Order: sequence, then C-alpha cells, then structure tokens
Amino acid sequence: MSDVPYKNIDVIGDKSSDVVWHQASVLTEQRVSANGHKPVVLWYTGLSGSGKSTVANAVDKMLFDLGCKTYVLDGDNVRHGLNGDLSFTDVDRIENIRRIGEVAKLFVDAGLIVSTAFISPFLADRQMVRDLLPNGIFVEVFIDTPIDVCESRDPKGLYKKARSGEIKNFTGIDSAYDMPLSPEIHVKTDLASIEGCASQVVDYLVEKGIVAR
Amino acid sequence: MSDVPYKNIDVIGDKSSDVVWHQASVLTEQRVSANGHKPVVLWYTGLSGSGKSTVANAVDKMLFDLGCKTYVLDGDNVRHGLNGDLSFTDVDRIENIRRIGEVAKLFVDAGLIVSTAFISPFLADRQMVRDLLPNGIFVEVFIDTPIDVCESRDPKGLYKKARSGEIKNFTGIDSAYDMPLSPEIHVKTDLASIEGCASQVVDYLVEKGIVAR
Repeated sequence: MSDVPYKNIDVIGDKSSDVVWHQASVLTEQRVSANGHKPVVLWYTGLSGSGKSTVANAVDKMLFDLGCKTYVLDGDNVRHGLNGDLSFTDVDRIENIRRIGEVAKLFVDAGLIVSTAFISPFLADRQMVRDLLPNGIFVEVFIDTPIDVCESRDPKGLYKKARSGEIKNFTGIDSAYDMPLSPEIHVKTDLASIEGCASQVVDYLVEKGIVAR
Repeated sequence: MSDVPYKNIDVIGDKSSDVVWHQASVLTEQRVSANGHKPVVLWYTGLSGSGKSTVANAVDKMLFDLGCKTYVLDGDNVRHGLNGDLSFTDVDRIENIRRIGEVAKLFVDAGLIVSTAFISPFLADRQMVRDLLPNGIFVEVFIDTPIDVCESRDPKGLYKKARSGEIKNFTGIDSAYDMPLSPEIHVKTDLASIEGCASQVVDYLVEKGIVAR
C-alpha cells in the first residue's frame, strides 16, 4: 500500500494555500442540504427468507419516489465483488459485516440513505457497525418473521438442505440468530403486507425528521 | 459469512410475486435520470505530492455546484476505515486498490460520480479496476507533476525521509511508478492553476455528455 505517505503530503503549495484548498472540499452538510434529507444506515437483519431484501428494496423505492438519494447493499452487489475474497470462517464472517459497515459509512458520508440487507445474525457484529457510526445514524430494522414462515417460503430449498444436513451452519437451524434487543424498527412480515412493512420504515424516518413526505 | 444462502431465497411468496418485488427495485438508470448526469469513476493517479487529492476535491466542488451527486474516496476516509486492516505487503497493496475499485463500482451503481485519489502506481492494478467496470465508466486522470516539483512541495518531509532511507518503498524514489499509457485525462499541475486543472476534468465530462453545464 504505497499510499501510506499520502494523507498529509498531497497538498499543493504552502500552508496558506492548503487552507484555500481544504475549503474547496464539499462537506457532508452541504450534500445533505442539496439532497433535502439526512443520511442514515437502515440495517436490516433477520433470518434467511424473512424478507429483508424485499422490504429493503420496497423502502428504497418509496424513498426514491420521495426524491431521496439512496442505495441498497445486499448479497447481489457485495458478495461477489468487495467481499468476494471472503470464506465462511468466523473470522471472515466478521470481516464481511465490518466491510459492509465501513462501506455504509462512506455512503452516509456522501449523504445517502443506505440500506443493508444481510442476515447479520450476531449482536456483537451489529454492535460493531453501530459503534462505527455517529449517534442516530445506525437504524436497526429487525425483519421478524417466524422461522416456520421462512421455511415454508424456502423457494430454493435451502432450509430443506439445512434440515437434511447437506448445508451446515445455517442460521436458525444449526447456527444461532441473536434477536435484536432494542431495534429502532421491528417489522413483522407475517402480519402486514410488504407495502405495509415498507411504510412502517418510511414512517419512522419521517417521524425522526430524517425524510420529509 | 452466513449470508451465503441469501441471494436466491430472500424473496417472499411465489414466482409471480417475485416478479412484482423485483420490479420494486430502483434501477441505476432511474437514479441517473433523477440525478441528471451519468455516473463515472474519476480515477486520479500520480506521485505523492502531485496534487491528486487537491485536484479531485476541486473537481468535486465544481461538480457539486453543477448539481451533481458526487463523492471522493481518499486516504482520509478509506485508509483507517475499510482498508484499516491492510499492511504494506504487495498482496495487501493490490487488495487495497481492489477494494477501492469495488467500492467505486458500488457508488457508480448508486448513480454517483466518484473520485478516487490514490497513488495507485502500477498499471496492472489500475487495469484491474478498469476491467471491473463497464466500458466508459473508468476515467483515468493522470496527475502528471514532475517529481522535483512534488519533492519541492514535500510539506511533511516524506521525500526527505525517503531520500535518507528512513522511509522505504517510496513511490518515485525506491519504488516504481508506472505512468499511464493512455489516460483519458492528462493534467499537468505545474503548467496550470488548480482551477485550470479542475476545469480540464470537468470539460472532459461535459464533452463526453456525462455532465451538463
């Protein structure tokens, strides 16, 4: 990483011109002002098949339609790209969540509302990400769907494979899922439509003054 | 990484409702349309002290003032965060650039103009990132400043330390810098003002129809 000496020397000119050039940077506050909403991380957590990605994308669409600048990080765009080098060891599982948290932080710095849709089964990992971010930025959205409902959906038969032992360390079957203790938003997908679930998330953002409707 | 079985099972309901829910996702084209400009990666490369970060931030400010959605990835926000686990070995140096490229790709997918300001001295690494992205998205900006000019700036005395051997593997002193062979934009900071250099980049984006002025 030959970029190490980069930070402090990549400034042209003397000290007075440094000041001028630091002023040229766009501040997060300016991005927020231009976007018309505050940035947050909507951190969706829940079992496989619980509906994290579905709800996250429905919320994202609602926010986009309200004029918000948004993005969704999920298995589709992260697993084969940024985190394509990671395996299934405990160490790599933690690193997976750490990197997603750090990328979410960059998106927040850029002024966006970024959603992450990963099982993220462990309290400690979710707390690590919460601690990365300023207060109020990490919004934990618990997609609380009973495992029997997740299992009955099971469109790819993964629960079936986990039950038969063909897949090991499957969350909810032979690997733990730590339920959020006090999530900012608690969504029960078996009791509401997807639109209803998504509205619950958007309502929270409006109530908190993050987004205007 | 217990998110592995995630991709294909995180859909609620049967096949017909899958379709409905896939339609709910916001497409990159829709983000582009809302933003009023196309997304690209402005990949700045050049020696330490060449002015990459300075020019990148000046360009970013100009683009922001034109109403563009932008972000700058640089040592300040990447090195201690996402890439804080990386050391200075060759393997980690490549991984540093790979991750920056992957994150830039996510920002492009979100519709932003993302600038990266890292020395990125090796052709192979820059080519790797170019290959990650669709055609026309990777815009290489060569910040071409003679090493004696960089060295005369040397506000933190790092060139001095490299000359004395106190710092090893310093790009341009005892580690190679592969000059870009055909960069999209070739900026000579010793022949123009910072504003002039930044305008050169913005002019390119306007000419290519990426940004409207």
